[in-house]
Amino acid sequence: MKLKKLLLVAALIATAIITMTSCNSNGGTNAHGIEDNNNIALENIMTRTSIRQYQPDRVIPKDTVELLLKAAMSAPTAVNKQPWQFIVIDNCESLDSLAEVLPYAKMLEHASLAIVPCGDLSKAYPEEPAYWIQDVSAATENLLLAAHSLGLGAVWTGVYPTKERVEAVSERLGLPAHIIPLAVVPVGYPEGEHQPKDKWNPEAVHYNRW
Amino acid sequence: MKLKKLLLVAALIATAIITMTSCNSNGGTNAHGIEDNNNIALENIMTRTSIRQYQPDRVIPKDTVELLLKAAMSAPTAVNKQPWQFIVIDNCESLDSLAEVLPYAKMLEHASLAIVPCGDLSKAYPEEPAYWIQDVSAATENLLLAAHSLGLGAVWTGVYPTKERVEAVSERLGLPAHIIPLAVVPVGYPEGEHQPKDKWNPEAVHYNRW
Repeated sequence: MKLKKLLLVAALIATAIITMTSCNSNGGTNAHGIEDNNNIALENIMTRTSIRQYQPDRVIPKDTVELLLKAAMSAPTAVNKQPWQFIVIDNCESLDSLAEVLPYAKMLEHASLAIVPCGDLSKAYPEEPAYWIQDVSAATENLLLAAHSLGLGAVWTGVYPTKERVEAVSERLGLPAHIIPLAVVPVGYPEGEHQPKDKWNPEAVHYNRW
Repeated sequence: MKLKKLLLVAALIATAIITMTSCNSNGGTNAHGIEDNNNIALENIMTRTSIRQYQPDRVIPKDTVELLLKAAMSAPTAVNKQPWQFIVIDNCESLDSLAEVLPYAKMLEHASLAIVPCGDLSKAYPEEPAYWIQDVSAATENLLLAAHSLGLGAVWTGVYPTKERVEAVSERLGLPAHIIPLAVVPVGYPEGEHQPKDKWNPEAVHYNRW
């Protein structure tokens, strides 16, 4: 009888531990007010923020860089033209050389690497080539979200259409005339704490008409 | 002695059960070749695809629409200007009226709703107003990703900069001159099976120089 009781207690403790340690994958709401169901992808979107400080001397593994690029290339493009090219800058000299001509992107000097998403006019939709800007912007957003999901930090520093920036980046990277750098995205392991901005603005929402 | 043995066995069984049922949050690779760590956000990016067929007569709850808009407004914007406005079209007449003037977006007639992400030139960065295109494109990509994560389907149908589309949408929605519709995004519950395109192209990746 004593043995049975002890076994019962052991079983109850085990059940309690299992309940406490198992995944809370359904129901409830978390700190961001997102339903737990499918929340990870949404939370990743809502907690991403621009990261400009990186841990020094950290190398991002090749496989991780490939995931970033795969995510970028998963973006939708007008008429499925995929009018893009990506330049990965992963040596210090090249990062410093870009920082030299982009005063607002000095954080390049401390980044593990940078990715430069470019439009490729030779692949753009002939009837409306300017759609490349939207396509490459969607790819850049995917890149930022992928970085965040992998514990990396990144920031979108604008290049196109500011003429002197486009020229400076094109010259440093040896880009031909039909390849237009949209942005320079430094990437690294975040240094310090970073809170996402709350940009929710119900006044920017309209129903059915202006 | 027998009692201690039994307790030990019970503890071992409990440990085994805990190990089997606890979250597999580290190590391993899944079908998409993504590390299990933080894979849900990445998988959501890589499995999103354009959805043009929707289940008829399904209403998307208000809370869900708000999540889509919150995700959109979590996008980065140049100099944090947030130069955007969103028109939610959720009545049949308005959806049909838009479909009438957008022959390539006839799926609007069967969508639960549509969201029209717009640039707001009155909020754009004065030194380079054209950054609104990139900002609103990033917001639109967030919107598509959020829809996918919530089991919805959506498709980015282009409007800007095609003059006749911009004019037609602006007229139907009563947009003032400083509000420019970038895209029309029908949203609904997906009908049928939809496989994402594999757009991974290693030839679009370059290291350090063109």
